[in-house]
Amino acid sequence: MAEPVADFYAVIPAGGIGSRLWPLSRADAPKFLHDLSGSGSTLLRDTWDRLEPLTGPDRIAVVTGRAHRAAVEKELPGVPDKNVFLESEPRDSTAAIGLAAAVLARREPDVIIGSFAADHVIRVPHLFDWAVRQAIEVAREGYVCTIGMPPTEPSIGFGYIRKGAELIVDGAPEASLVASFVEKPDLETAKEYFADRTYLWNAGMFISRADVLLGEIAEQEPQLYAGLMDLAEAWDDREQRGPVVDRIWPTLAKVAIDYSVAEPAAQRGRLAVVPGHFDWDDVGDFASLAKLNSHGRKNDLAILGENARILSDAASGIVVSQTDRVISLIGVRDIVVVDTEDALLVTTSEHAQRVKGVVDALKLTGRGDVL
Amino acid sequence: MAEPVADFYAVIPAGGIGSRLWPLSRADAPKFLHDLSGSGSTLLRDTWDRLEPLTGPDRIAVVTGRAHRAAVEKELPGVPDKNVFLESEPRDSTAAIGLAAAVLARREPDVIIGSFAADHVIRVPHLFDWAVRQAIEVAREGYVCTIGMPPTEPSIGFGYIRKGAELIVDGAPEASLVASFVEKPDLETAKEYFADRTYLWNAGMFISRADVLLGEIAEQEPQLYAGLMDLAEAWDDREQRGPVVDRIWPTLAKVAIDYSVAEPAAQRGRLAVVPGHFDWDDVGDFASLAKLNSHGRKNDLAILGENARILSDAASGIVVSQTDRVISLIGVRDIVVVDTEDALLVTTSEHAQRVKGVVDALKLTGRGDVL
Repeated sequence: MAEPVADFYAVIPAGGIGSRLWPLSRADAPKFLHDLSGSGSTLLRDTWDRLEPLTGPDRIAVVTGRAHRAAVEKELPGVPDKNVFLESEPRDSTAAIGLAAAVLARREPDVIIGSFAADHVIRVPHLFDWAVRQAIEVAREGYVCTIGMPPTEPSIGFGYIRKGAELIVDGAPEASLVASFVEKPDLETAKEYFADRTYLWNAGMFISRADVLLGEIAEQEPQLYAGLMDLAEAWDDREQRGPVVDRIWPTLAKVAIDYSVAEPAAQRGRLAVVPGHFDWDDVGDFASLAKLNSHGRKNDLAILGENARILSDAASGIVVSQTDRVISLIGVRDIVVVDTEDALLVTTSEHAQRVKGVVDALKLTGRGDVL
Repeated sequence: MAEPVADFYAVIPAGGIGSRLWPLSRADAPKFLHDLSGSGSTLLRDTWDRLEPLTGPDRIAVVTGRAHRAAVEKELPGVPDKNVFLESEPRDSTAAIGLAAAVLARREPDVIIGSFAADHVIRVPHLFDWAVRQAIEVAREGYVCTIGMPPTEPSIGFGYIRKGAELIVDGAPEASLVASFVEKPDLETAKEYFADRTYLWNAGMFISRADVLLGEIAEQEPQLYAGLMDLAEAWDDREQRGPVVDRIWPTLAKVAIDYSVAEPAAQRGRLAVVPGHFDWDDVGDFASLAKLNSHGRKNDLAILGENARILSDAASGIVVSQTDRVISLIGVRDIVVVDTEDALLVTTSEHAQRVKGVVDALKLTGRGDVL
């Protein structure tokens, strides 16, 4: 691979718990702190390792909750203190990425930033590298650039990006404008999108100049923008940071960056896209975790867990073992079994999206001890 | 109910582990030591309580393994020492029941004995009582008498008894001869049997004079009979019993009483039957356990476990909880989940009979620690 890009900074928002992966993902063991791909390291660490060739070791920022600080620093022992942005509470992705953008732009006005989720699985790193390098060149021209994934099936689990006119940008031969940004479709629509090769999956990666991103936020969410500016001004002053965070952070609007930046930018012809030719999975639920770990063989039983003791007879799906118990599966197809010390989940791939509902129900019924 | 029957003695073979109910049933916690019916007491205790009105408290013998002695005596605190028959190892039902018959016949030559499994569920005790009292009157005439259950479905899980000519016996208006004794049929045959009202299920209950039973054993299994005689002679002599048991018991043929007594007796017109109008279930596997505990409502999720913490969404079947873990079931139909400290089973009602195969596989693969 080529040298790091001198004016580029990566931002990893490491926030979401991943409720659809309960009881594997927990408040104190969120998705990004698990090895879900069988790589031998956590998703967060894999994300870092993928970005480092693009940035060098000192230019990757992580935005995470105060509760995860120790775990994050343990996973990323090389991370400079100034690159760890701690949230006192979750305020969604515009606040998280916007904070990093605002602080980094104060430190380095022309910086280009790219935000990459801490909990996605990406294979074939050199193709990822190639896509990001193209996106950086597009960002240099003043666009917000995203990386769109060519669909491999008519998924209803992702938003879609419709490609518009090609862009002529040096170093980014595959760049296009984004014609529109569309929400998760129904199955019929997803099939149309899948047949029509102009649609890509939105993988939630955004690359842009920090000041361009902040300008988009200012346009759509002026109050949120003002808050970010106040935070950035105080951030690098050890004495001021604490009080300003305490005062401002809890007041910031909770809004996803898809809505505050990507959709409006697309409407105004300011959103670009380059395709990602790498394997990508957001591991959104146990169905995708099963697929990811069974190597596409439908009758396989994927097993996660270093010390798993599994006995299966005509079983397929996925079993996640975090205890030393013997687990026997007989004649269960597309099953999802997640065995942890204090909670057990049994469902099927078909119902994997409903796991979040269990988490909500556990909160409501006072059983939050297992969340 | 009427008074106990003066010359009647009940024998409860409490031997089988119930491998099809693993991991609930274990070598050290066999089926008969569980409350599977929701009665609040173990199947063994329920069996005792059902028999006591027929025998009085001092005339119920239990044949069990040495390892279960303490548990059995804890469940049945009133059992006289002379009524506990300990097996040094399992030698199947002819040896178990034959031993009790031989010893009881020496103590009381005209005794009538009835053998009743320790791990069946029976509801409506006065109808059970009525069937046994009829069977005792038939046994008094020199027959081996069984209690046959009118089928409630074309089951392939039970053997069938075909009724023959009616018997004229005082006090047993429903008695018939048994025309034949047939093995577990295939589904087609089971449907024919179910349509033809002359077939009853074999519930494995046999009532006869002890000497008649021993005579049948002598006819079919002369060596086994000789061994039982030697055991009986030594049994009530504290000094002799141990050495004789050690010498003879391990040599006895392992044969089910269905084969050694019931089938040959049926062929010679010496087996009779009275119908049982009570609810009966042998709780042979988790499918029947689910049915037993869901009160026949197909969409119910039956829950066993005093401290079960279950969250279910569109789930049916059965969950057995022996831990304090939260168990979440989403969209799984006819599921069987058995959650114990060291083993977890996930299967479906359809595959419930295959659980025994898991137990065999665990033995073979050196994981007998969870059996």
